[in-house]
Amino acid sequence: MTLLAMTGGVGGAKLALGLTHVLKPNEVQFLVNVGDDFEHLGLPISPDIDTLLYTLSGLSDQVQGWGRAGESWSTMEALEHLGGETWFRLGDKDIALHLLRRSLFDSGMSLTQVVEHVARQFGISHTILPVSDDPIRTVVQCELGDLPFQEYFVRHQCEPKVTSFSFDGADNAKLNKKLVLDQVSGVILCPSNPYLSIDPMLSLRELRDFLINTEVPVVAVSPIVGGKALKGPTAKIMRELEIPSTSLNVAEHFSGLLDGFVIDAIDRKETQRIQNNALQVLVCNTVMNSLEDRIQLAECTVQFLRSLG
Amino acid sequence: MTLLAMTGGVGGAKLALGLTHVLKPNEVQFLVNVGDDFEHLGLPISPDIDTLLYTLSGLSDQVQGWGRAGESWSTMEALEHLGGETWFRLGDKDIALHLLRRSLFDSGMSLTQVVEHVARQFGISHTILPVSDDPIRTVVQCELGDLPFQEYFVRHQCEPKVTSFSFDGADNAKLNKKLVLDQVSGVILCPSNPYLSIDPMLSLRELRDFLINTEVPVVAVSPIVGGKALKGPTAKIMRELEIPSTSLNVAEHFSGLLDGFVIDAIDRKETQRIQNNALQVLVCNTVMNSLEDRIQLAECTVQFLRSLG
Repeated sequence: MTLLAMTGGVGGAKLALGLTHVLKPNEVQFLVNVGDDFEHLGLPISPDIDTLLYTLSGLSDQVQGWGRAGESWSTMEALEHLGGETWFRLGDKDIALHLLRRSLFDSGMSLTQVVEHVARQFGISHTILPVSDDPIRTVVQCELGDLPFQEYFVRHQCEPKVTSFSFDGADNAKLNKKLVLDQVSGVILCPSNPYLSIDPMLSLRELRDFLINTEVPVVAVSPIVGGKALKGPTAKIMRELEIPSTSLNVAEHFSGLLDGFVIDAIDRKETQRIQNNALQVLVCNTVMNSLEDRIQLAECTVQFLRSLG
Repeated sequence: MTLLAMTGGVGGAKLALGLTHVLKPNEVQFLVNVGDDFEHLGLPISPDIDTLLYTLSGLSDQVQGWGRAGESWSTMEALEHLGGETWFRLGDKDIALHLLRRSLFDSGMSLTQVVEHVARQFGISHTILPVSDDPIRTVVQCELGDLPFQEYFVRHQCEPKVTSFSFDGADNAKLNKKLVLDQVSGVILCPSNPYLSIDPMLSLRELRDFLINTEVPVVAVSPIVGGKALKGPTAKIMRELEIPSTSLNVAEHFSGLLDGFVIDAIDRKETQRIQNNALQVLVCNTVMNSLEDRIQLAECTVQFLRSLG
C-alpha cells in the first residue's frame, strides 16, 4: 500500500520534497500534471515534471522558482541574436534535459520511462509518474480567445482575464498504467493551482471517479493562504471567475472528492464553514519557506490523512 | 554572371572567406556539401554549412577549427551528468542555431531558406546554397562496416581504414533550385576533402554533368600540400585507398571536370605531370594561416580562373 501525492508545479513540489523526507520510496508515489506540457523549438517540455525532478534532486533554483540553480543562458542569448523565439526561456543545463527527452522519445520511450531514467540519473529514489503518457493540453479561455497554456502562462504572464479552462486530449488519455489504484491507501492533493495543475489531472475520468468513489482518505492542502496564492495566478484566476479567493472556495471546488482539508493558521476562521461541507479540517502552518517547513507540513498532512483512514 | 565556389568544411571555408573579400555578393555564390548532415538529439545538424556561416560572419573558433569562438559547454556537461550522448559535442551558442533550424524546419522552411535566414541574421551578404534541399548522406565503407559519416568522422575520429564511400539519397536529390547553372561563369572547387566534401556534391548527376560539359572554366585548389592534408583525413584516406597523397592524384581524382589546378609552391615539381592531364597549373602559396593568406589565395585563384575563360 502506498500514498498518492498529486502535484503540479512549484508549490506542490515543495510539499513533495517534504514528503520524501517523511515517507520511504515505497510509501508514496507522485502523480504529476502534464497539462502544461508542450513542444517548443522542437523540444518536448514538461514543466511540472521537471520542477519535481529538479526539486527532489536538489537541483532547482529556489530563488527564481523554476529551472535549475546556477543556470547559464548562452543558448538563449545566441538564439536572440539569431532572431529566434526566446519568450520561453530555457537555461543551458535545462536544455540538456530537453535534448535527452527528445532523443529518448525518438528511441521509443514513453514519458514515464523518460522520467524514470532521469530520476535515476539524478539519484531520486521516489517514484514520479506523469498522470498520463498521452498528451493532455490545458487550453485557457480568456479575453484573447483560446490560448494554449504556455502562451497564457509565460508569453502573456497570466495577464488576460480568464473565463474557463479545457483539457485537450483528456477524453482519450489513459491514466498512467504504472499507477495501481488498488494499491493506493490515501491521496494528498498538494498545494498546486486547482484549475491549472490539479484539474487537468482530474480531467481523466478514471482518476476522478476513483477519487469520488474510493474508501481511502483524500485530503487537499490549500494553495490559498490569507486570500492569496503564495505563488502563481490561483487567486487572480479565482477573482476573474468571480469566486472569492478563499480556502473555503478551493475546498468547495474539490467538492465530492475530499475527506479532509489542510488550511493555514491565518485562515482558521474558515474552519467551521469548510467543516459544513462534511470535511475534516487540519489547521497548521502551510507556508513553506524552509526545508523544515516542508517536512513539518508533510508530517502533519500525512498524520492527518492517516487519521481519516 | 557569377562564380560558383564549391566548399565543404574548414579548409574550403577559409578560401570562401578570402573570396568574400575579393568578390562582391553578386559575383560569387557558395555551394556547400550536405553529406555530413545528420540528426542528433533531435537536432538537424549541418556541419559544413554552419562552418561557412560561422566563418563568413567572423564567429568561428579558429583555434579549435569548428564551432563558435568563445563557446561554453554547460549543456554538454549537464547532458553527460544525465547519461546522454555527448560524443558529438555541441556548444551552448551553437545549440541555439540548431534549435532555430529545428523550429524553422518545423514551420515548413527548406534548408536553403533556413540558411538564408541565418546568413541575414549574421550579417552575411554573400549567398550560401546547400547543394540540395534533399537529404544526401555520406556513408563510409570501412573495416567496421558501413558507418554513417559522423560515426566515422567524430565518434571514431576517422580511425577505421576506409575502402569506399557512398552517398545515400543522391539518386533522388535535386540540385538546389536557386542555383542557376546558366548564370555560372566559372567554378572553383575549394580545398576541401575530395572524397568527403566534394564528391558528395558531385554525386548529384546534374551538377557533375554540368562540370563535365560546361564551357566555363573549372579550377580546383589542392587540399594536399607536401603530401599532407592541412586539416582532416584526406591524406590518410588516400593512403588507405592505396593512392599516394599527392596533388597530382587529387587532380586525377577530378579528371574530366577541371580546366585548371592550383597547387602549393612546395609541390611545384608536380606541375609537369599535372599539365600532362591537359590541365593548366597555378603554383602559389595555398597555406592559409592568416586572413591575408586567404585573400591572397582567393585573388590568385580568381585571376587564374578568369585567365582560363
